[in-house]
Amino acid sequence: MEFHYPNGRKYTLDARKKLTTPAQKKISYSKRGMALEDDINETNQYYLVNGMAVIHKKPTPIQIVEVDYKKRSTAVIKEAYFRQASTTDYNGICEGKYIDFEAKETQSTTSFPLMNFHEHQISHMQNIVQHKGIAFVILRFAKTDEVFLLECEVLFNFWERMNNGGRKSITKKEIHDFGHKINIGYHPRLDYLKILKEIYSF
Amino acid sequence: MEFHYPNGRKYTLDARKKLTTPAQKKISYSKRGMALEDDINETNQYYLVNGMAVIHKKPTPIQIVEVDYKKRSTAVIKEAYFRQASTTDYNGICEGKYIDFEAKETQSTTSFPLMNFHEHQISHMQNIVQHKGIAFVILRFAKTDEVFLLECEVLFNFWERMNNGGRKSITKKEIHDFGHKINIGYHPRLDYLKILKEIYSF
Repeated sequence: MEFHYPNGRKYTLDARKKLTTPAQKKISYSKRGMALEDDINETNQYYLVNGMAVIHKKPTPIQIVEVDYKKRSTAVIKEAYFRQASTTDYNGICEGKYIDFEAKETQSTTSFPLMNFHEHQISHMQNIVQHKGIAFVILRFAKTDEVFLLECEVLFNFWERMNNGGRKSITKKEIHDFGHKINIGYHPRLDYLKILKEIYSF
Repeated sequence: MEFHYPNGRKYTLDARKKLTTPAQKKISYSKRGMALEDDINETNQYYLVNGMAVIHKKPTPIQIVEVDYKKRSTAVIKEAYFRQASTTDYNGICEGKYIDFEAKETQSTTSFPLMNFHEHQISHMQNIVQHKGIAFVILRFAKTDEVFLLECEVLFNFWERMNNGGRKSITKKEIHDFGHKINIGYHPRLDYLKILKEIYSF
């Protein structure tokens, strides 16, 4: 017996696969996208509650065009646009040290595209280093769920290589060699402070 | 000869005064409201350009409800609401020191109402102090255009006084006695770093 979809297409295992895969993929991607931010937020919350550090994600910068003040209690924003961030997403303090970082992930399995970062984010991290702060990036390979911490000085080198006409990404081997793997735990989920304390001995 | 407004009201100097004053007042208030933020942003920009500090205002936290992705290039936010900030508005770094502050102004001429601050902002500043950061508030008396820097430890004392049933504001005399006046300059407009360097000797 043959089965058909409402659109007339014959039901086969292959057809089902074609039908469900893109949707599943989309859900999976977006979950992964949120996962890194969620994991970092949960980790920061853990640090805060346990008095280990005070690190927060900055709100997304938004350009507000129209606000409806009709209701006295709640102003409703009716038109607004996303703006590009001029700094990194996360900053705060740990034992007197200023901490500053950006977190990004890629679907690539072989390298991390540098287009994930903006020129002014690089400048911002350079300024932080000049003021003796600690700046770095957290990189996740979504498909394998591997997370690395890369000191900003290392990122600057690869950024310069790109500006000098070199490759527009960091290979996974380079990240393995020059970065620090963050093991995914239960609580906190991404203990990046542990790595920072080892690197900077504080 | 008598003149009349379109609504029939007789034109006199008094009537004109009544007609224009509220509008002027409104503009003046809102200008004042932005003035403090503008002055601090300009000052931070001056510090940044001159390599003196890296301090930014955090974006306003917004809860996004509906986004229109129709156009490929620009996502339009169609419904969103202002959220209460969980931290202070400004933070950054200066010569290895973590800097964190909130800026507020009042129309009162006699005292600064503590309702300008939220409990979690006080907690946040207490956490910063525990991690050896520098936290403070910048207070402006809008009508006289006087600006003061108040160390957070001083603010905590007045906050505690309120929580113990005492007055819900800091008198202007107390701010004069326990705070530090920031002279309004040309460039930078509000040189609060100068005061911090004196207080904390860095």
